[in-house]
Parts: sequence; structure tokens; C-alpha cells
Amino acid sequence: METIIANDATQYVKIAATLAQEFSKDAAERDKAGGTAKVQRDALRESGLLNLIIPKEYGGEGQPWSIVLKIARELAKTDAALGHLYGYHAFQTVLPHIAGTAKQKEYFYTQSAKNNWFWGNSSNPIEPSLIGRRQGDSFTLNGHNTFSTGAKDSDRLAITWYDNAEKTTFYLGIIPSSRQGVTINTDWDGMGQRQTDSGSVTFENVVVEADEVIDFTESKGTPFATFDAILSQIVLANVFVGSAEGALEEAKKYTIEKSRPWYLTNYEEAIDDPFIQRSYGDLWIDVQAAVQLVEKAGEKVDEAWAKDRSLTEEERGETALFTGAANAFGTKVALHVTSEIFQVMGARSATRKNNFDRFWRNVRTHSLHNPIEYKRKNIGRWMLTGEYPTPTVYS
Amino acid sequence: METIIANDATQYVKIAATLAQEFSKDAAERDKAGGTAKVQRDALRESGLLNLIIPKEYGGEGQPWSIVLKIARELAKTDAALGHLYGYHAFQTVLPHIAGTAKQKEYFYTQSAKNNWFWGNSSNPIEPSLIGRRQGDSFTLNGHNTFSTGAKDSDRLAITWYDNAEKTTFYLGIIPSSRQGVTINTDWDGMGQRQTDSGSVTFENVVVEADEVIDFTESKGTPFATFDAILSQIVLANVFVGSAEGALEEAKKYTIEKSRPWYLTNYEEAIDDPFIQRSYGDLWIDVQAAVQLVEKAGEKVDEAWAKDRSLTEEERGETALFTGAANAFGTKVALHVTSEIFQVMGARSATRKNNFDRFWRNVRTHSLHNPIEYKRKNIGRWMLTGEYPTPTVYS
Amino acid sequence: METIIANDATQYVKIAATLAQEFSKDAAERDKAGGTAKVQRDALRESGLLNLIIPKEYGGEGQPWSIVLKIARELAKTDAALGHLYGYHAFQTVLPHIAGTAKQKEYFYTQSAKNNWFWGNSSNPIEPSLIGRRQGDSFTLNGHNTFSTGAKDSDRLAITWYDNAEKTTFYLGIIPSSRQGVTINTDWDGMGQRQTDSGSVTFENVVVEADEVIDFTESKGTPFATFDAILSQIVLANVFVGSAEGALEEAKKYTIEKSRPWYLTNYEEAIDDPFIQRSYGDLWIDVQAAVQLVEKAGEKVDEAWAKDRSLTEEERGETALFTGAANAFGTKVALHVTSEIFQVMGARSATRKNNFDRFWRNVRTHSLHNPIEYKRKNIGRWMLTGEYPTPTVYS
Amino acid sequence: METIIANDATQYVKIAATLAQEFSKDAAERDKAGGTAKVQRDALRESGLLNLIIPKEYGGEGQPWSIVLKIARELAKTDAALGHLYGYHAFQTVLPHIAGTAKQKEYFYTQSAKNNWFWGNSSNPIEPSLIGRRQGDSFTLNGHNTFSTGAKDSDRLAITWYDNAEKTTFYLGIIPSSRQGVTINTDWDGMGQRQTDSGSVTFENVVVEADEVIDFTESKGTPFATFDAILSQIVLANVFVGSAEGALEEAKKYTIEKSRPWYLTNYEEAIDDPFIQRSYGDLWIDVQAAVQLVEKAGEKVDEAWAKDRSLTEEERGETALFTGAANAFGTKVALHVTSEIFQVMGARSATRKNNFDRFWRNVRTHSLHNPIEYKRKNIGRWMLTGEYPTPTVYS
Repeated sequence: METIIANDATQYVKIAATLAQEFSKDAAERDKAGGTAKVQRDALRESGLLNLIIPKEYGGEGQPWSIVLKIARELAKTDAALGHLYGYHAFQTVLPHIAGTAKQKEYFYTQSAKNNWFWGNSSNPIEPSLIGRRQGDSFTLNGHNTFSTGAKDSDRLAITWYDNAEKTTFYLGIIPSSRQGVTINTDWDGMGQRQTDSGSVTFENVVVEADEVIDFTESKGTPFATFDAILSQIVLANVFVGSAEGALEEAKKYTIEKSRPWYLTNYEEAIDDPFIQRSYGDLWIDVQAAVQLVEKAGEKVDEAWAKDRSLTEEERGETALFTGAANAFGTKVALHVTSEIFQVMGARSATRKNNFDRFWRNVRTHSLHNPIEYKRKNIGRWMLTGEYPTPTVYS
Repeated sequence: METIIANDATQYVKIAATLAQEFSKDAAERDKAGGTAKVQRDALRESGLLNLIIPKEYGGEGQPWSIVLKIARELAKTDAALGHLYGYHAFQTVLPHIAGTAKQKEYFYTQSAKNNWFWGNSSNPIEPSLIGRRQGDSFTLNGHNTFSTGAKDSDRLAITWYDNAEKTTFYLGIIPSSRQGVTINTDWDGMGQRQTDSGSVTFENVVVEADEVIDFTESKGTPFATFDAILSQIVLANVFVGSAEGALEEAKKYTIEKSRPWYLTNYEEAIDDPFIQRSYGDLWIDVQAAVQLVEKAGEKVDEAWAKDRSLTEEERGETALFTGAANAFGTKVALHVTSEIFQVMGARSATRKNNFDRFWRNVRTHSLHNPIEYKRKNIGRWMLTGEYPTPTVYS
Repeated sequence: METIIANDATQYVKIAATLAQEFSKDAAERDKAGGTAKVQRDALRESGLLNLIIPKEYGGEGQPWSIVLKIARELAKTDAALGHLYGYHAFQTVLPHIAGTAKQKEYFYTQSAKNNWFWGNSSNPIEPSLIGRRQGDSFTLNGHNTFSTGAKDSDRLAITWYDNAEKTTFYLGIIPSSRQGVTINTDWDGMGQRQTDSGSVTFENVVVEADEVIDFTESKGTPFATFDAILSQIVLANVFVGSAEGALEEAKKYTIEKSRPWYLTNYEEAIDDPFIQRSYGDLWIDVQAAVQLVEKAGEKVDEAWAKDRSLTEEERGETALFTGAANAFGTKVALHVTSEIFQVMGARSATRKNNFDRFWRNVRTHSLHNPIEYKRKNIGRWMLTGEYPTPTVYS
Repeated sequence: METIIANDATQYVKIAATLAQEFSKDAAERDKAGGTAKVQRDALRESGLLNLIIPKEYGGEGQPWSIVLKIARELAKTDAALGHLYGYHAFQTVLPHIAGTAKQKEYFYTQSAKNNWFWGNSSNPIEPSLIGRRQGDSFTLNGHNTFSTGAKDSDRLAITWYDNAEKTTFYLGIIPSSRQGVTINTDWDGMGQRQTDSGSVTFENVVVEADEVIDFTESKGTPFATFDAILSQIVLANVFVGSAEGALEEAKKYTIEKSRPWYLTNYEEAIDDPFIQRSYGDLWIDVQAAVQLVEKAGEKVDEAWAKDRSLTEEERGETALFTGAANAFGTKVALHVTSEIFQVMGARSATRKNNFDRFWRNVRTHSLHNPIEYKRKNIGRWMLTGEYPTPTVYS
């Protein structure tokens, strides 16, 4: 049984690797174009990978998070935007499970599996820019959210709103992305992660039906109810590490195929230069450390996820330490690698045509959404005081 | 007398600062557009700064290199391409002085001052892609050079060629950029330094007249004859350090005016966050160290330049150590600063509109032309063996 | 069955943790004294941990390398010298298995298990300073070896010699440490790792009996025959990482119990200072990355070890990549952590009494025996050319 | 005139260099012994260097701070404790000038010059552990100060006390070190800077005469009155940078004379190894950057010092930015260099006999007295808010 699952898992990652190779063909061009990666999103739809995290009893593949994360990392090797979209899709998919009732969990899992939904979100935990007026148990929403992920071309949107500007009560709902009154704007202008469809979303008298509003009564107060931040952290960490792996691989190919030896040396080929060899080794070592840390964090996530509603504060805290660490370390390594590769590729590599700078731009852009200094602080505070990182949207 | 010169110098740097501020207005847009910065190049022409390095007896401003370098750095603060163009212009201007006869020195200095020439180059020290056929003392050139600097819109081009594919003899000439048969291609496709006009140049039966061919007989064998590499190193070093200074300044403005405090803290403004303060301090310290090193190297260049043809190998070597060090250290600091600024500006800063990534792209692109690992090696070898860096095009 | 072994393994690590705590009591003093840690060595003898790597069929505990390595790391947390002695003991114990005949493997394993031998070595792969004169199948040795590990107070010594100064043939033998003519000098004067008994050993007409000479006929040419370098690399890596873990733990205790808040701040305690929290977090993250990489390398060693004589070059190479990476990364992290801890403990921590500098001195001393630059180069060369690190004493 | 002073200055630094060479002979042994460097202190007394900072009109040498600092750096190259003692001696010497009346300035300068006083201090700005009971204008002191600098064997002690445990009023006095009731304890137990005589001082009914109490009436409220922190910062910065320079020089000698090439390479000598060359170059570059920054800060100190009581807050603030930056950057570089040198010297260098670890221990110990994180923060705060570092004992 164990073996079979293992085989399945390997199979899924292979599918992802094939997709990644396919996506790599025009990744440089699509980075320049920005917008929605429609063809690639449809390929993901057809790949069967969208239902991985959905338990088998609801029609999904019943895979653990570690497999989903490996796939996000695999995709990020050639296209960090798609790695992010995939990871966040899975993360949105489980929101009813994390925060809703047993009934909602069943409903959304089942429907998502059956209809092969691709999930996006539109949320703003910081500012109450989207306000919902209650009518019975349903809401009418007006306003906007500044950021989203994968909203365009999605089937379902996880959205959040407040009932007033004083942020008295916070709501989470799941609606069809095509719902009347929802306008998904194409105003995402990031210098990296150009195809994550992270633009703003405008809501004009958008109705959220009663059963689309996540009902917190069963989850309230459980550490499991704040599992979303853990998922967001570890998805990002995998995107960073995948970006580093992909950048290093791409650089390696370039150095082997195109780099010239430094003209004041006698080496026949660039690959014989001891400084180039040393740098590659050094980068590989850093990347391996990041891979192992992100894998360890993935195991922790699997264990914690398996606890479901019985997850304790300590268990959640322990997991958050590792996902935070993987995220911070992944950021550091990925920024370093994506900048250093140019030094081992040489001057001719730095063209707009090659567009190798997209790796750095992707990581740099994506790693800003929650400051790593605070991740470090949270972990250090735990070391010194025993207090786990406070559960928030980002930790 | 000393005082007056000092005032002049301050005045020149002020002019550069004014130009830099002017150039900053559309630097982000021009980076996207690439091509030739015609308006800005003309502003440089009108600024009176083009003749700075030309001695007064030939009609120039008679300024030391340290002032020219300060100006390149000042320009690089807002536009690294223009800093590079300006520094390389000065560097080309002195080539007849460095390598030619007394007569050529006089002729080119005088004409350049009188006509306010803007110099560019088109050179390939590595490959013999441009071949000149001798006819008496003049040459007819056919072929191409892959890289150039500031060729487009220049008045004079410093060009190099070989007399055959075996690289038997190397020639340097100064020709009008508009010379019949010269095609300056617009194929520069760098991911940074987008307006340095560094594309290829094609030569079709281009005649170089006898007196346009630099005559090495007087300079041959003198350490001064290889001063060009020192100038190239230190111009680049100043462009890197200026880029770091400019990026930090731009980031500071953004943080003060636009950054928001991390929403899980209680700071009223981002500028109150101790981690943001600490990071700015750390970056400023690194930049200051780079500024001081580049200034020290500039002093060394002034001293060495003043020796002219009497420059000894030791004096040249000592200068090369400092210009190499400034270049390598400047690269390290500039790459670090131009990447770190995003962390203190926050997620919303990383847009294509802001285009703050151009600072990193500029430094990353520009710092690849001669590997810093070999600069480090050359300095270390000198420490251990006493041998100065071998004079080459890059050291 | 699996479970039971797992429990055993946990048990062994618990024993090691208890020993480590015991050893910590006078680790600072013993570092000052240097010499042989007799009491601690005897405690290891009594702990039952010496026979861990010996297969069950020969009377040992039959544990995988990963457990041995965990124990070396556990011991290194409070005393890096003892971690090293333990890891190297295990590594010497398996030399007859790696390089000798089936009969020798059986003999030495059985005897070692039965007699609870503590192994040391005295070897010099570089210089032929110890020469053995052959008499039939036995040898008479004269000369010395400059370095050893754990020679003093050992029961068996793995020694190497050449048959002449031209290094024609290299021999490995296992002799009782008390063998007539062997003088283990107390001249180890390292600035760190003060109790590894790494002094020189003098040999005066030392007889090595025929069956004490390892017979390479069965192992010759197999990739498995060079497994010793892999073991040496990964033992050291674990000692480095254990040192980093231990230093961080010790620092944490100090900061909690003794550090004062910076007097220009308003924090009641040092542990509330955000910069101190941030630094601890950052160090913890780096250490975790190192732990995961060293654990991954340990798994690779387990897999490769299980292949025994059927180990292929590829499998050996793949393992060497990870042990080399873990060693280089462990060095980097351990040097960083053991130096940075002072900054979070504050000025009063830096006393001779506290002797916290021993962590840095241990790592710094121990990490010099094979340059990490060459480890990086080897890995980079493999990336670019596909050639695995050449099997040597150090890779 | 200018020229003569310049020659003098060079002469002073030459004297310091000669002393440094002399001190280097037993620096390693004296580090082990700790205690008071009596012979070396007497050599400083005889060198004529003690009176450098005292203006000529009072019988001193009338040198600027930059010369004093160069000498502290020169001495620190071979013995960081003596560099520190010398720099702090000069810093104590000017305290009456900084904080006292014109009469006190004259008196102490004149007497110090005439009697060739060697100054030490005993001060505790943080805790009120030394209490003075007022009797008329004199005080009777009881209590202790935990730290001192160069107290043992000094001629005069600058001491501070409070008039009660509530720290109502803070006093500064200058007394003969041999004053009745003063006990200078030999309890300094630093892991580095072993001969700075930084132990505690006990006071038992110690009388401070009225004219020995520094009278703040003339200095009160002037930015110049807080110049002491600037001096302390920049003295330390020079000790760090001198340590780095000295460590690198010592390592270079070792590598040239003793290091062996890595045995798996074909280089005849270690100095031919490209990785060793590269590392030396890299370290030299960092050290040069630190030297230039510390020199720049020295110039700033000279300018600010020349302003005397007319120094403005802005001028003080500007100076503090550079001395803080030089201190923080010097710390970073010195820690890096003093640890990295081992890697280029190799395994055999790391002995207690060589005692090369004293360089790292010195820097590590000495750099803890005021956290560099807060120096960075102060500078960053100034960048963002325009507020200069608040004048305190440490900034």
C-alpha cells in the first residue's frame, strides 16, 4: 500500500516535470508579456494535478501536502508564476476544510474534484477595502481588494471582506469567479511573477449566498483554523527554492553550451575554469541545504495536516517554525543564486533575449510580501521565550 | 590658486548633479525603451563637461581624473548608462595621449576641445573580427566588432583592428563616427545598461587615414602605454558605486514617502521600524566604505596620471591594485544594495512602473565584463609573490 | 521489527545525550587542560555505544551509520573533541570491512565487539614518514606519523605506512595500541579540538604481524574500497553541525539567564530586544538547514553502505557529493554561528572562565584538514562535466 | 611649515611601527600570560608618543587625532591590547579639555606633558556602583567600577561616580592612580584583549580633591562636551582595522614561508594555488575598504576636534555617523579576516604555539562593548528621519 502511494506520488511529480519542461519553452517570452498564462493553466487543468490535495473519499487524489509542494517546486523551476498559482490553488481548495463546517468541507471538496476547479483568491487582510452588507445569511459586497492570486481564469475565488470599515467582523466566502458584479482587473504590474494574475478585483453588488459564506462555528478557536498561514508560507518557500534550482540548472546549461573561458586564461572551455567550478559547487551546496530544509518543513506540514482539528497549539507552532525557517532560508538562497549565476555564465548571458534576470525578479518580487526579518524575529523569540509565532495570516 | 581649482571642481560636480536630477525624470522609462539617450547626450554636450580631462594648454578644462570619476559616479546615481558613457568618453579622449605620439596627443586634444567631441569606441581585444588591409600608412577595414560603447551619436570612435586573423599586429585608430562604411548597429540587447549604445559595429571598406592611426613608437614599452585598463576599471567602479548610492537614495525616498509599516507591528510609519532602520544603516555603511575605496583609487589614478610617460611599473602596479580593488568591492556592494533595497521598501515597490530593478540589472550586466574572481586572484598573487597584476585590457 | 530498531536507535541517541550533558560539566576546563579525556573515554566504553556499527552477526549492535553520526553530533554539542573521537572510532572499526578480506572483516568485528575496543589511528597519506620493512608477510616499522586521532588510551590503532620513501606500496594495518615500540606522543598542540589526542606517533621496530596487515586482494578496485573518505567527511560534518547546535544552545542559556538589555534601550530583559531575537532566529534557521543537509547525507551514506562491495562508482560518487556538501556547508554555518553568538550574549560573556570561544576554536581547527574550496570545486566540476569527485583520502 | 608637520607625523607613525615590531616578538606569549604589559607600556612612555595629542602651547606635540589613531592602528597590527591602551590613553588625556574649564584643560595638559603621564580610566556609565559623598567641593568615594582600561601601571585615572544610587548627579574626576584607597584589581579575564588591564577597581574612602573634579560649567550643553563617545568609537574602529591588517600580514608570511600546497594539486607551492591567491585578494580588498573608511572617519574627527567648543550639533552628528560606520564596518571586516586567514594558512597553522587565534579573540572580545546592530540602527534612523545619533557614552 505504502509502495503504491509512493509510486503514485512519483508519477505526479513526473507529470509536473513534463509540464515544467513544456512551460519552459516560452517562459522568457511570457514573462515579458505578463497577463494570464491561459495555455499553461489549461495544461494544469488537463494534467489531473488540480485534485491532488482533495481526499479520496471526496473524489480527489488524496495526496499529502509534501507532494503538492514538490509539484509547486517542480513547476517553479521553469516558471515561478505557475508554481505559485498551483500551490495557491491547492491552498485555496482546502480553506473550507480548515475553516468551515464538515458539510462545507464535503461540499467544496466534492464539487471541486468533480468539476476540476482551478481556485484563485482575492483577499486583503490588512485594509477593509471590501465591505459586505448582510441580508439574512447572505451578503452583498461592494468595494475592492488590491491583491489577488490567480483570479483571472479561475473557477472559484476565495474572497474575504469585513462588515464595516471598523473591521468588526471578518468573513471568508467561496464564489464562482464569474459571479455577477465581480471584475477581475488586469492591473498586476509586478516586476516579477508576471503571470500570477495578482491584480485587483472590484466588487459591485456581488451577492455571496448563505452557503458560500464559510461558517466558522466548528473551527473557531482551534489551532487548525489558522493553518492557512502555514500553507502560504511553505508554498512560497517551495517557489523560492524551485526558482533557485531552476536558475542554477539553466545557468549550468548555458555555461556548458555557450560560456567562453576568460580570455586571459589558458582553459579550453569555461567549464574547466576552477573559479567557475568552485562557484557552481558553492551554489549547488546552498541550494541542496535549502531543498532539504524545505523538504523537512513539508514533512512537518504533512504530520500537522494529518492531525486535522485535533492539532494542538504546540504542534502548529512547531510546524510554523519550520515553514518560516524554510521560507526565510529559501529567500536568502534564491536571491543569492539567481544573482550569482550571471557571474558564472559571463557577460554575453545578460541579454533581454535570454531573460535570465526573470529568476531574480521573480524571487525578489515574491519574497517581499511578508518580511523575513520578522520571520527571523518570531523564531528567535520562540527560542528565548518559548512562545510560538503568533498565528496570523503570515505566520 | 588651489582654492580656485577646488571651486571649479565643485562647480563641475554640481553641474553633473543637476544633470543627474534632470536625467532621473525619465530614467525608468528610458531603461524600458533602450536605444540612444539623445536628449541626455546633448545635455552633456552643452554642459561643458566633455572637455574636463583635456589639459588647459589644448583648450580643455585641465581637471584631474578624480573629478571626471566623481562626475561619472554622480551621473550613475540616477542613470548608470549615462555615467558609463561619460566616463568612457573621457577614457577614449585620452587614448592618443596614452598610446600615440606627442603630435597626435596635441592634435586630438585640441580638436576634441575645439569641437566638443563626444567619444565612443568599438573594439574587440579578444577576437580578430575586424581586419585592416594596409595601403601605405593608411588602412582599409572590413569586418565587425561585437561590442562598442557609446558609438551611436558619437563624434569620434576609437577603434581597434588586427592586420590578419593571426592577430599579428594590433592597431588603434581614431575616426569620425560618420566615416563612410561604418554602420553602428542598434543590436545592443543588454538586460541592463540599456542606453550605453553597446551594439556591434560593421565596417565595410572603411578607410583609416595614416594620421588617424595611433603611432605607438613613442609609447611602446612604457607602463603608461597600458594606462587604458586602469581607466576602464576605475570608470566602471565609479558607475557601480554611483548605482549603489543612487539606488539607496531612491529607496530612502520611497520608504519615507510610501512604505507602510508591517501590519503586525504598532509602528505608525515604516521609518520607525527598527529592522528597517538597521537595514538602511547597514547599507549606508557598506556604500560609504565603497565610496571611500573608490575615492582612494581615484587619488592613486591622479598621482599615476600625473607621472605621464615617466610612470614606473611599480607605480602602475600599485594603482592597478587599487582600481581593481575598488572595482571588485564596488561590484559586491552594488549588487547587495540594489537587491536589498526592496526589502526595506516593501512589496508594493516592486512594480514595473517603479522600475527599481533597473539598478540591479545595470550593475549585474555591467559587472560581468571582467570577472571579479580574477581581480581578486591578481591582487592575492601580488600579495604572495610581489608580482603586480599583468597589464592587460582589463587589469 | 522496524519499530523496535527505531526504538533502539532513539535509545542510543538518548544515551549519547546523557553523556553529552555529563561531559559538558567540565568541557570548558578540559579544553584548557588539553590531553586525554580519560574519564569521558571510559564513559563511552561503558555506554555500550562503541559497538554500534558492528553488525549483529559479529556481536555488535548492527546500527546504520546515520545513528552513529547522530551520536557523534550529539556528543559534539558539548564537546567536539569527543564527538570526533567517537565518530573516528567507528570509522576505524570498519576499515577491515572496507578494505580487507571477508576473514579479516569477521575477525576484527568479532574481536572488537567482544573486547569493546576503542579504536584510534595514526596515518599520514601525504608523506612517507613511516617505512615498513617486509619480512615474509609481516612488517617491521620505523619512523613516525605526524598526526593521529584518539591514539592515546586506544585499544587498537589503524596505521598506514609505505614500504619505501618512493611510496611504491601503501599498507594499512591494525595493531594493539600497546604494541612494543609504539610511542604515542603528547605533542598535539591544536588551538582547538584539544582532547582529540591527535599528536604524533613514533614507531621503533614495531612488528605488524601478517594477519594484522589488511589484505587488499578482495577489495581492490571496488568503489567500496574508498568508502573511508566518505566516512571521514561525514563524521567531520556532523561534528561541525553539532558544534554549531551546541554553541547556539549554550548562548541561548546565557542570554536568558545572564545577558543584560542594551542600556540605551527600554527592554526589561535582553530576550525582549528585537535585534537579539532576530539574530537568534537567523542563526537557528542556518543551523536547521545544516542539520537537514547532514541528515540527508547520512541517509545517503546508509544507502551506499548497505550496498557493500556491490557499490557502483555512480552510487559512491552521488554519496560523496552529499557528504562533501554537508561538510562544506556545515563548516560555513558552524564558523558563522560560533562567532556570532557573542554578539547576542554581550560583552560580559567573553571571558576565559566561560570559555565560549572553544566552540569557534574547535570548528576553525577541525575544518582545515581538507580545504572546503576544493570540495566546492569538486562538486562544481561534477555539475559541469559529470565527473564525480575523484576518490581520495579526502573526497 | 605644513611639510614639516607632515614629516613629524610620518616620524611618529614610524616610531609606532618600530614599537609594533618589537611588541610582536612576544605578543603570542603575552596573550597567554595576560596581566600588565609593563615592558611595552614603558617603551610607549619612552617613545615620546604619549604627548602627541597635547597642544604645543602646553608642552605636547600638537598632533591631530588622525595621527594618534594611525598609531593606535599601527600598534594594533601586532598587539591589539596595546593599540587599545594607547588610543584610550589619548582619549582620557583630553577629557578635561572636552568637559572641564579652560583652567583645568591647561592644568592637566601641562602636567601630563611635563610628567609624561600614562592615562587609564575606571568608569561605569551604566550602574551606580561607585558613590561619592560630597564634603565642600571634594568627594570621598566608596564602591567599585566593574570595568577599567589600562588602570594598572597608569599615572592618572579618569574616574566617574554618582552621588547616590538614584544617579542624581554624575561626576568625572582625574586622580593619581596611586591615590590612597584605590585598589586596581587583577581580575580582568577576557578571552581576548588580554593585556588591556580592564579589571575592576575598588575604592575605599578615596578622596577626590576639589580641583580634581571636572567642572562642567563651561562645557555644559555644548555638543563638544560629548566628544568622548566619538573618540571611543574611532579608537576601537582603528584597533579592529589594525587587527585585521596585522592578521592578514601574519597569515601572508605564514603562507609564504610555511604553508604547503594542497596535496591533491600539482602546485609547487601554496602561494601558486589560485584559490589561495583569490582568498588573499578578497581579504585584502575588504581590509582596504575598512582602512579607507577609518581614515575618512579620522579626517572627520580632525575637522570636528578643530572646532572645539564651537562644534555644532550637526557637525558632531556628521562625525558620529562616520565613526559609527567605521566601527561597525571595521568589526565586520576584522571578524571575517581573523577567521578566514586559517583557511589560507592550512591545518598546521592552527596551533597554540602559533596562537594566531588571538587576532580573532581580540576583535571578538573588543567589539562587544557596544552592539553594532544599534550603530546600524542609529545611522539608518538618521537616514530616514534626519535625526543624528543621540550623543551617549557609545555614540
